Amino acid sequence: MKNTLQIKNILRQQPIHSEITISGWLKSKRDSKKLSFLDVSDGSSLSGLQVIAENTLANYNNQITKLTTGCSLTVRGTLLPSPAKGQEVELHAADIQVHGWADPEEYPLQKKRHSFEFLRSIAHLRGRTNSLGAVARIRSRLSYAVHHFFQERGFFQIHTPIITTSDCEGAGDMFTVTALDLDQLCTNGTVDFSKDFFGSPARLTVSGQLEAEAYALALGNVYTFGPTFRAENSHTSRHLAEFWMVEPEMAFCDLQGDMDLAEEMLKFLINDCLENCAEDIALFAQFIDKKLMDKLDNVLQHDFARISYTEAVLELEKSAKHFDFPVKWGIDLQSEHERFLAENLMQRPVIVTDYPKSIKPVYMRLNDDEKTVAAMDILFPGIGEIIGGSQREERFDQLESAMTDADVAAGDYQWYLDLRRYGTVPHAGFGLGFERIIQFITGMGNIRDVIAFPRTPGSA
Amino acid sequence: MKNTLQIKNILRQQPIHSEITISGWLKSKRDSKKLSFLDVSDGSSLSGLQVIAENTLANYNNQITKLTTGCSLTVRGTLLPSPAKGQEVELHAADIQVHGWADPEEYPLQKKRHSFEFLRSIAHLRGRTNSLGAVARIRSRLSYAVHHFFQERGFFQIHTPIITTSDCEGAGDMFTVTALDLDQLCTNGTVDFSKDFFGSPARLTVSGQLEAEAYALALGNVYTFGPTFRAENSHTSRHLAEFWMVEPEMAFCDLQGDMDLAEEMLKFLINDCLENCAEDIALFAQFIDKKLMDKLDNVLQHDFARISYTEAVLELEKSAKHFDFPVKWGIDLQSEHERFLAENLMQRPVIVTDYPKSIKPVYMRLNDDEKTVAAMDILFPGIGEIIGGSQREERFDQLESAMTDADVAAGDYQWYLDLRRYGTVPHAGFGLGFERIIQFITGMGNIRDVIAFPRTPGSA
Repeated sequence: MKNTLQIKNILRQQPIHSEITISGWLKSKRDSKKLSFLDVSDGSSLSGLQVIAENTLANYNNQITKLTTGCSLTVRGTLLPSPAKGQEVELHAADIQVHGWADPEEYPLQKKRHSFEFLRSIAHLRGRTNSLGAVARIRSRLSYAVHHFFQERGFFQIHTPIITTSDCEGAGDMFTVTALDLDQLCTNGTVDFSKDFFGSPARLTVSGQLEAEAYALALGNVYTFGPTFRAENSHTSRHLAEFWMVEPEMAFCDLQGDMDLAEEMLKFLINDCLENCAEDIALFAQFIDKKLMDKLDNVLQHDFARISYTEAVLELEKSAKHFDFPVKWGIDLQSEHERFLAENLMQRPVIVTDYPKSIKPVYMRLNDDEKTVAAMDILFPGIGEIIGGSQREERFDQLESAMTDADVAAGDYQWYLDLRRYGTVPHAGFGLGFERIIQFITGMGNIRDVIAFPRTPGSA
Repeated sequence: MKNTLQIKNILRQQPIHSEITISGWLKSKRDSKKLSFLDVSDGSSLSGLQVIAENTLANYNNQITKLTTGCSLTVRGTLLPSPAKGQEVELHAADIQVHGWADPEEYPLQKKRHSFEFLRSIAHLRGRTNSLGAVARIRSRLSYAVHHFFQERGFFQIHTPIITTSDCEGAGDMFTVTALDLDQLCTNGTVDFSKDFFGSPARLTVSGQLEAEAYALALGNVYTFGPTFRAENSHTSRHLAEFWMVEPEMAFCDLQGDMDLAEEMLKFLINDCLENCAEDIALFAQFIDKKLMDKLDNVLQHDFARISYTEAVLELEKSAKHFDFPVKWGIDLQSEHERFLAENLMQRPVIVTDYPKSIKPVYMRLNDDEKTVAAMDILFPGIGEIIGGSQREERFDQLESAMTDADVAAGDYQWYLDLRRYGTVPHAGFGLGFERIIQFITGMGNIRDVIAFPRTPGSA
């Protein structure tokens, strides 16, 4: 059995009068006197193909008339121009084979609208719906676009480790990985990790950055694209315990080059998606967010605004707007501040740079003012922070003293200090939360609906 | 600071008489009377660029003459034809900026051969060596080729979950993921997982197959490409605790279509790599495996042999060869058997099909003989199994009874049975161990040397 022609390609190429074979699932059926109209989808595109099944088919009475939503079929027939509105071609069936049934009393995906919350409870089936199928196609295309963007620019992908003993952000909230039998574990406050698989405590990575830095200082330009983890007990629509991150890292690059690349990448991803997933995006623009196309255009048509944290704080203080978290220099910007900057003040994407060193990780490069670091966050209207990045501290002495100040055990990071000991260079990078860009492009409100099988507190 | 031109592109385009700027690391230096020859590499290619630094440079005496292997530089100059053998161009420096030094007393990567074992102990630096740098470039290209292969054929990438409660292979040997504080954990034989992050025991995935099946039955053709894990206490050169797998899954596809796709994919990956990484592959053919090109050609030039397990066992029994594990119908083929089949008997890749059901997972489709299942393993000369796949059991009753026979708790797999309950279709897929194909293409003997930061017992 070979793969048959995808409906996406049939609709594109329209091989009129050819005999073709398609396989897919029934979306809906309408019977008239002498024939039935079957709307068949194979998941390759939002649009299905209309199949005309005449009552002269051998299995018309005992099978075709009994088909319901979700049944699987293979149809052989001739493609002809369609007289019907809204479609250019239709398939006149010579033969229809039924593979699987879907009892309409039991199958939960009958043709009607389902809430996203309900669909989350049947994650293994929800990819068959229009909206979640479209999300999956867009996610796949965006993933390919990420690779395309970096590889064509001479970046090498590094598969950085998932299991790690580093703690990049000092974030806490990491998952423990162990091969110990927890049922047999009884401790008095100290687990003997020498008996564990790795011989020491191991965790799930929160970022591939540190390891990517090692390879940037070997190969020049690299990127990672893989799963990362936070054991944060957040029940919001913005957080996942397992999510995918894109993290480029560039040798011989400063904050300016970092921002330029990030802006170029975001525009590339959106453009690529508009070109290759137009039909799916139109679905979201119609049903999920009426202003979606304007929001995407707003990003594509403007240079991103660039202001320093210090300027941003001044602007926020000047504004008449009341914030729940009062603004003053030194605070971490909250979502309400970020959105005000992007949505009200600038009305386009904003890159905020040079944050106070006290609120940023130790690896960020200290500016000459000795109060701020060469950090940058990209804030999108409607979504807030979508990218965080920085120029890294490439000077051995500065990095070591920042570690001391922050109580980081330098002993665990000798390998990281080695990168500054031997042939150190200015370098920079950033992290893109992959689900955030999918949310932005689709307008989907809940991050759990842009990943196939979301992991959240209480749910794996 | 912008990214400068990559040396790879300079060597390809040869913009003679242009003023260019490069950044990179010193590989070696040779001084003559009035000038120094610097071999500078930026990691974009195996070849570096020769820089001519005359003693008229302002920092010649106090910096250039003191440069040693591993120092980082930015060089501005004019590209000219080179009179020297083995290179077509060289860069005449107008200005050289030194970014970082590398004390030759301390820097471990002096210009000499290092054992791979030693290099494993400095994983953060080993990407700077010729061989490990070449591995990293090939790995990145192969990764891109995987995406290219599937996306251009209409497959959608699915990011299947890393943290899971499924156990695809019944493999045991899975890592536990927990947010419980192990130091405070004291149990009497039963951990209260309701207090853990996910509210139930969670593990690191060994395969994305089951979840990929859910999306194949929604979108048609899908693939996964992500990290998978085994907590197997293997200290061999063939096993990692964390490795990357490529797993396509196709709806409306049987074992025949599955084998065809796998063979096409393997040939595509090797061809793509030969075209795009010729210089790096030549390095391995020269220093690691003199027969490498013949081995790659052998795969490309032949149709893969296809024999059933039953035939294979007969052939092994007929052969005069002595095996440590005696052969008889029903055994799992051992590495010695697999290699004999591919290397001696067929002298090319072999696909062995239709294994006894007793040695394969329950999800494989039962053949009409009711003794074998529609499985396939692809065996490569010199490496053994590189791909394992199967047609999946799409018939509800057969799957349920196979689960019962194998003592799989069907209650945990209702979602998986749902895929057979509603619109089931014939479908098939396979798994490629990504490190195995890199080993095959590079000839690298130890799997720990084809992944940036290997995770093995005792080492994270």
